[in-house]
Amino acid sequence: MPPRSKIPRPTVKRLSLYLRELESHIERDQQTISSKQLGTALGLTDAQVRKDLAYFGQFGHPGIGYRVQELTNKLRHILGTDHRWNAAVVGAGNIGRAVMPYARFARKGFDIVAIFDDNPSVIGTEIAGHKVRPMRDLPKLVRERDIKIGIVAVPASFAQQVTDELIRAGVLGILNFAPVRLDVHDAVSVASVDFSLSLEQLAFQISLGMTGPLEELSP
Amino acid sequence: MPPRSKIPRPTVKRLSLYLRELESHIERDQQTISSKQLGTALGLTDAQVRKDLAYFGQFGHPGIGYRVQELTNKLRHILGTDHRWNAAVVGAGNIGRAVMPYARFARKGFDIVAIFDDNPSVIGTEIAGHKVRPMRDLPKLVRERDIKIGIVAVPASFAQQVTDELIRAGVLGILNFAPVRLDVHDAVSVASVDFSLSLEQLAFQISLGMTGPLEELSP
Repeated sequence: MPPRSKIPRPTVKRLSLYLRELESHIERDQQTISSKQLGTALGLTDAQVRKDLAYFGQFGHPGIGYRVQELTNKLRHILGTDHRWNAAVVGAGNIGRAVMPYARFARKGFDIVAIFDDNPSVIGTEIAGHKVRPMRDLPKLVRERDIKIGIVAVPASFAQQVTDELIRAGVLGILNFAPVRLDVHDAVSVASVDFSLSLEQLAFQISLGMTGPLEELSP
Repeated sequence: MPPRSKIPRPTVKRLSLYLRELESHIERDQQTISSKQLGTALGLTDAQVRKDLAYFGQFGHPGIGYRVQELTNKLRHILGTDHRWNAAVVGAGNIGRAVMPYARFARKGFDIVAIFDDNPSVIGTEIAGHKVRPMRDLPKLVRERDIKIGIVAVPASFAQQVTDELIRAGVLGILNFAPVRLDVHDAVSVASVDFSLSLEQLAFQISLGMTGPLEELSP
């Protein structure tokens, strides 16, 4: 694999799409797939598909294309979806309470194993089976429970401070729900959730007169 | 413009990216941009950029490329981002309470003007300045307040029923937070928000060793 800095972000974003398309081919019992088929399904050129996948190794077989199961396994391994990740939520407000029991996380391999908040009125209360812990417990629990991902669900004004504490505690990535850009000094990975982008896409579809379900809004 | 069915979904998804890139060029006072520059910024081929934009008209000028302000205005108009949209939330639970005061919606041209829930214990209470109304008030308010978008923030088991009522009331689009695929009989547009996709992207970045902020996870 080339150095991480050489892999373009749009390529990373497309990997979920490749994986989902491959999984639907497995369900339909199709053994092989060409870059052209993958491209057509996702609205990409076959050259783009080959270029994206080439960042991770030589997967294609001349005259055959890609072996679906083989490529799926390799992508899953590269992308870390073949193991489970422990995550912790910081912030027991509306967003934190909404994501705690979010069943799709578990299905994708993520287990939320702790929730933190410094508000005395919520510390000790239970949310989705987990007692809310004070922030001072964070370093110990991140270590003990092998927490790799911190989910920031606090107001914008606290998000940076919480992020700094999560980084010090040793998480590898931050999922940020706060409407603010976080500074992580290149120490960890960050992804942000902005609902307004989904609403914007919906408005586009309405304006373009496109009805019916759009597949989930994925990168 | 060609019939809507001819515009590929991935093209629609890329329009926000084009728009954002163009807006950053305006901020930097750059008057023109080539399909190659746009493509490089977004990890697309220049051919893909030209093909995407050609669905909406002939925007390029030979030897010049695209005039940034002109293309921005045309895209904004096509995409309906040059006017405001009224939206209503159904479901006064955690997600509903989290999105009601979401400032980024207003900044992108969306105004949440009502919230509905049939739980007697929340009807009449106030959330972000709006009284929670019973579902029976929905048809009247959609008409009176020109509500075009319904935000479904109810548990999965109620989502389809709520969607049917929103469609009957006359909304044009549904933003769905419930973890279920909605059937809209091609009557309206639908976009779904799935937090687990963002978490998956974050895990990819960690696995690939990519640190630092990823731009917001956009389609």
